[in-house]
Amino acid sequence: MTRISAIDINCDMGESFGNWVMGRDEEMFPLITTANIACGFHAGDPTVMRRTVRMAEQHGVAVGAHPGYHDLEGFGRRRILLGPDEVGALLTYQIGALRAFLDTEGMPLHHVKPHGALYSFLRDDEAAGLAGARAIHALLPGVMIYWPAPAFGTVFCDELRQLGHPVVADLYPDLSYDENGTLVIKRKITETDMDFALGQVRQFLKSGQVHTEAETLLDMTAGSICVHGDGDHAVELAAAVRQTVVDAGSAVQAVSA
Amino acid sequence: MTRISAIDINCDMGESFGNWVMGRDEEMFPLITTANIACGFHAGDPTVMRRTVRMAEQHGVAVGAHPGYHDLEGFGRRRILLGPDEVGALLTYQIGALRAFLDTEGMPLHHVKPHGALYSFLRDDEAAGLAGARAIHALLPGVMIYWPAPAFGTVFCDELRQLGHPVVADLYPDLSYDENGTLVIKRKITETDMDFALGQVRQFLKSGQVHTEAETLLDMTAGSICVHGDGDHAVELAAAVRQTVVDAGSAVQAVSA
Amino acid sequence: MTRISAIDINCDMGESFGNWVMGRDEEMFPLITTANIACGFHAGDPTVMRRTVRMAEQHGVAVGAHPGYHDLEGFGRRRILLGPDEVGALLTYQIGALRAFLDTEGMPLHHVKPHGALYSFLRDDEAAGLAGARAIHALLPGVMIYWPAPAFGTVFCDELRQLGHPVVADLYPDLSYDENGTLVIKRKITETDMDFALGQVRQFLKSGQVHTEAETLLDMTAGSICVHGDGDHAVELAAAVRQTVVDAGSAVQAVSA
Amino acid sequence: MTRISAIDINCDMGESFGNWVMGRDEEMFPLITTANIACGFHAGDPTVMRRTVRMAEQHGVAVGAHPGYHDLEGFGRRRILLGPDEVGALLTYQIGALRAFLDTEGMPLHHVKPHGALYSFLRDDEAAGLAGARAIHALLPGVMIYWPAPAFGTVFCDELRQLGHPVVADLYPDLSYDENGTLVIKRKITETDMDFALGQVRQFLKSGQVHTEAETLLDMTAGSICVHGDGDHAVELAAAVRQTVVDAGSAVQAVSA
Repeated sequence: MTRISAIDINCDMGESFGNWVMGRDEEMFPLITTANIACGFHAGDPTVMRRTVRMAEQHGVAVGAHPGYHDLEGFGRRRILLGPDEVGALLTYQIGALRAFLDTEGMPLHHVKPHGALYSFLRDDEAAGLAGARAIHALLPGVMIYWPAPAFGTVFCDELRQLGHPVVADLYPDLSYDENGTLVIKRKITETDMDFALGQVRQFLKSGQVHTEAETLLDMTAGSICVHGDGDHAVELAAAVRQTVVDAGSAVQAVSA
Repeated sequence: MTRISAIDINCDMGESFGNWVMGRDEEMFPLITTANIACGFHAGDPTVMRRTVRMAEQHGVAVGAHPGYHDLEGFGRRRILLGPDEVGALLTYQIGALRAFLDTEGMPLHHVKPHGALYSFLRDDEAAGLAGARAIHALLPGVMIYWPAPAFGTVFCDELRQLGHPVVADLYPDLSYDENGTLVIKRKITETDMDFALGQVRQFLKSGQVHTEAETLLDMTAGSICVHGDGDHAVELAAAVRQTVVDAGSAVQAVSA
Repeated sequence: MTRISAIDINCDMGESFGNWVMGRDEEMFPLITTANIACGFHAGDPTVMRRTVRMAEQHGVAVGAHPGYHDLEGFGRRRILLGPDEVGALLTYQIGALRAFLDTEGMPLHHVKPHGALYSFLRDDEAAGLAGARAIHALLPGVMIYWPAPAFGTVFCDELRQLGHPVVADLYPDLSYDENGTLVIKRKITETDMDFALGQVRQFLKSGQVHTEAETLLDMTAGSICVHGDGDHAVELAAAVRQTVVDAGSAVQAVSA
Repeated sequence: MTRISAIDINCDMGESFGNWVMGRDEEMFPLITTANIACGFHAGDPTVMRRTVRMAEQHGVAVGAHPGYHDLEGFGRRRILLGPDEVGALLTYQIGALRAFLDTEGMPLHHVKPHGALYSFLRDDEAAGLAGARAIHALLPGVMIYWPAPAFGTVFCDELRQLGHPVVADLYPDLSYDENGTLVIKRKITETDMDFALGQVRQFLKSGQVHTEAETLLDMTAGSICVHGDGDHAVELAAAVRQTVVDAGSAVQAVSA
């Protein structure tokens, strides 16, 4: 049991596409310390990416790549059964594209966080996980990878560990954990859920642990807290999470490797 | 009038897409010194890009980015009236994506050569030309840009010159030039055309000049010769061009800034 | 000068795409008599199209196809220089796709209204206009085509007239007309603009004419009034337009050929 | 055991996309009686579709829709986990698009044959199978559906049977069957495989049966024989299959419901 003295707050950003707006990025940027920016395959486009990178710069927010499946219509949330070679190339391409916008602004690439169904495919498909880990490491051996805490037992994470690649565990305050540390996905944020989320943040900051659905305590060595950018109350929840961290006396700052 | 002691031979490569094959890249790589690799917007895809970069590496061929319009169906040959911001972001994105595959292999990005209708839009639309030049320079201030010789009087080239950005003039042996140095596009390569192309290469190597359609001589300070990858006789023409260079006693080597 | 006893109100609908929402279709449907439904190329997707067709059916709204360029990122508002064959096939494809959703529900295809930059390309490019008119007529010789009133002197409209194809002139209440009948595009709807729009509707219903920017009166034999679905006040403007029609004693009903 | 007096020969056609050519459609059309034309989602585009429909008309070949996943890069061969609503809408859209090109030429839609991974998803996923069957039936209750023979026990086929919807069993001469009637996929066509394919065709025509890999005889009430359009020897195999049918004294003709 360890008190958390400083924590990162990350959010998916730049999820608009062409004329379609998603999220309230202008309001969200002041609340977060790291942004996972969509790379044009499941959301975002080159113009949106450049604009979002510049907004991050203005707010002093560190930027990570948020690569996903090439599936705008499905917002990267539909599993596509790719071969491992395809997965590796998909990651290389998108990370490189986002990094170019950062280079243009003189900003480093802070991290990589796989999106949606690509994340769960990397988690579940061993060949894809292996290829994905190696592709990211071959491109950028020092770039942090955000992965849902507690990241036990996936080939993807094992391979990264063996390569000496930095992984940051990511806490989802508005989702429950079962006693094995598996996320229990719920959909809508109600007021009750906000209480739950803030309570989970407080518990985590105080002890480095969360309560599971089975009422046990789970060690949670997370380096970042993920707030969601979509949903009607996304900004309000993010603001409340941030305030909760401040009130707990912890610093709000981007994680470093 | 100057004899050309060494010349680069470039070709568009990696133009396959998914299951669709275009070009005979395996046969073409041994004949060229620089490859313009499609970046997934008008041709190519992440898997094709990685494979093509690796083939270039095996053949000791330097790699440039070949960005185009986001128009697979039109192969990047249909003009799309983009705003200048869109053009800049389009270039940044694609160059960054290709560069990631090069970084992964430990290879530098040698140059950038705009493709098809994006090239002619950069040439003709002043705002796009300005934005495009600045976007490339902001990302990679030292990367060579290939541009059809003789590159007179476009805003794109003027801006690059003012920024001190290196531009390499590119000679098209199988096309005619008019007396103003404008390319006269023809379609199919016949045997006669091959004679024409080889004659134009010989003239250029001997004198740094080409004969125009008006029978005048035009100074042509080209640093590279472009051979085409499509067309039934593409490989044969490339081989003949290379042999012509060798026979003229000029070295075949990638251009350097 | 003719009083208008009945008028159609049309609006672009089904412009959401995947997870991205555009427009307030649920609120708009009760206010209109015909819906121009996007066909998946510039907006919409198969799932959105089916849902929108069913909403139209529930509200007794007649459905037209709203085909556009294949350019989701640009929302069909960027001109793409297509050849005439491409334009014809583009129209056939999209109209057929939308019609299938209507057939499934037992609904007829009421009309076709080209979208955005495809509309203006059909207007400006003679070869495209000719090919487009013929493609629509060859597929559905009786389907009405909505075209901005007053539709003078385009090859597209001339060809349709010669083929005996029905064209419905479409009035834009929130835009000004110059004395030649050309639309003068403005961007945001303010309260003043709403006054303008409602005044233009009243003038039209009373007389079949509108005031031009040059203060002349222009004959306007429109069969439909177009309200916009995007913009912050779109629903409010549509409601006010409808109420204005009702207050003027004119019937609000779908136009028939 | 029944001799087959007449048989249909079908082939996937129109699989080119933009500048990329696939298949030798000109040579294949004289050999077949029905064409499964790609609908622009996994292959084909509006221009290719129109051209292919016209070629079919010239050769007196009946046309079916060949809908697939929206995945050009994967050629529709990568499973995408769609919800049942998405599957239904995907089918409606593509069938409608192709039918429009047929309507334009005054040709009927002869059949629907799902492509690649969409076929196997309809076969394996019960909710998708149900939704797919209903979507096709709701659009065109009389259109034949081609399905690999012998089509036992899928929800998709059961639902069609219950709806009274016509299904045509499709025989793959170059693939082996196991004793349960499941296809055993092999990749390349060698000379030996051609012998195998022609032998299988002869056996089928003579008896309405094929030999399985377990050396048993399997009843095969197929109404069509599928020849492949891709592969180096596709045209040669198709020609040999057709000649085999002719030599066996059976008629080569499109199946009718």
